[in-house]
Amino acid sequence: MTQRYRGILAYDGTDFLGFQIQATGRTVQGEVEAALEEVTQSPIRILGAGRTDAGVHASGQVIAFDAHWRHTTAELQRALNAVFPADISLRQLTPAHPTFQPRFDARERTYHYTILNQPVRDPLWRLYAYHVPQTLDVAAMDQASRYLVGTHDFSSFGKPPKGETFSPVRTVTRAEWGQSGARLTFAISANAFLYRMVRAIVAVLVQVGLGERGPDEVRDILAARDRALVKSLAPPHGLCLVRVEYPG
Amino acid sequence: MTQRYRGILAYDGTDFLGFQIQATGRTVQGEVEAALEEVTQSPIRILGAGRTDAGVHASGQVIAFDAHWRHTTAELQRALNAVFPADISLRQLTPAHPTFQPRFDARERTYHYTILNQPVRDPLWRLYAYHVPQTLDVAAMDQASRYLVGTHDFSSFGKPPKGETFSPVRTVTRAEWGQSGARLTFAISANAFLYRMVRAIVAVLVQVGLGERGPDEVRDILAARDRALVKSLAPPHGLCLVRVEYPG
Repeated sequence: MTQRYRGILAYDGTDFLGFQIQATGRTVQGEVEAALEEVTQSPIRILGAGRTDAGVHASGQVIAFDAHWRHTTAELQRALNAVFPADISLRQLTPAHPTFQPRFDARERTYHYTILNQPVRDPLWRLYAYHVPQTLDVAAMDQASRYLVGTHDFSSFGKPPKGETFSPVRTVTRAEWGQSGARLTFAISANAFLYRMVRAIVAVLVQVGLGERGPDEVRDILAARDRALVKSLAPPHGLCLVRVEYPG
Repeated sequence: MTQRYRGILAYDGTDFLGFQIQATGRTVQGEVEAALEEVTQSPIRILGAGRTDAGVHASGQVIAFDAHWRHTTAELQRALNAVFPADISLRQLTPAHPTFQPRFDARERTYHYTILNQPVRDPLWRLYAYHVPQTLDVAAMDQASRYLVGTHDFSSFGKPPKGETFSPVRTVTRAEWGQSGARLTFAISANAFLYRMVRAIVAVLVQVGLGERGPDEVRDILAARDRALVKSLAPPHGLCLVRVEYPG
């Protein structure tokens, strides 16, 4: 009998072209499906909660798949972790309801964006933090972030994913900066995100931190609903999908 | 006129055969000397405080070199950081006394060893922490560590570096475990270390954490002064040289 499973996946995005499988190139989905086929001896398609870009990391991506497996769920998790490459791991695996859809059922997603704010780069953080050598005004960035919280049309910061005709309205429930030494972490939670929305937001907040924009401009950019106002993206390697939550 | 400089170097040891230059293969010393030659147009030899092994990281390695440089020290630091590969950076550069010797003048060295103690590996820490899936008794490991503090003959845990006829006596001033979630960090400071001493110590302390040895066995192993008693080494990628201190 076939069972649907729900898994929490962590990966280092450095050597992936992104989550979603592509005709050529190494993807997280491709590697996970290859491992599932190796372990179960059947081709299996997985669903993911978020299609992270090339270079974006995850500590809490959620996936679902159907498998015919005769042993325990813990044994399936162990078998997959034994087969996965070193840059992917399955942190958790549980049986799920047959209709569980990690993307559409998600209630809230949380991303962290890490900046290393010190004059000299740090080789030990080069894969996981965006290095900004100029001093950032973190208080101004945090103040600007408050305009993002709430239900807004985020058209200035991204487009709905390809193939979707849904509205660009999203509800941000948290957007704030934390600091630990030279390391700044932006935590943002929302019901869902537009395509590349977090990286566009961080790019603008860094401009605020550098004094190139005032904190209030974030409110104006939001209100303008004009994608042309935000031309830059923060680099992908500072971004990590840390948590996806579901009702109940 | 030639000036001696003192620098603090950080590097990700993953893709190096170690600090010390070798006939073939990528080394930290080799990369730094190549960058110095590119920047100053002269061949320059560097001295290092510690010869870290292949795969061992550093956030606070200390180096010294003599250079003929017409501009400011800050400009030399910037020029080197611009030429260094992404896995090396020069955190600090200052003029030093012409007789400064980073290795022989050092008063104290501090290493951190990081363990990730959770059932499933974490891809985001795979290059910087040793994954131990079984639950470790951190209190027992910390208790065992206390036997290391003081002036002892550490022959059971290592040999004096090649070419040295010095004694195997070292003075450990700090040896303790800290815990932050699943991440355990061992901080050890000493006037100097024997070859691979920290990795041998951590291997034994992990055996204590697993219940394979009692904490008191560390005292007995020390007293035996027998290198044959410690056969294993903790893997290099958990180790990081974080600080070297000098008198004054």
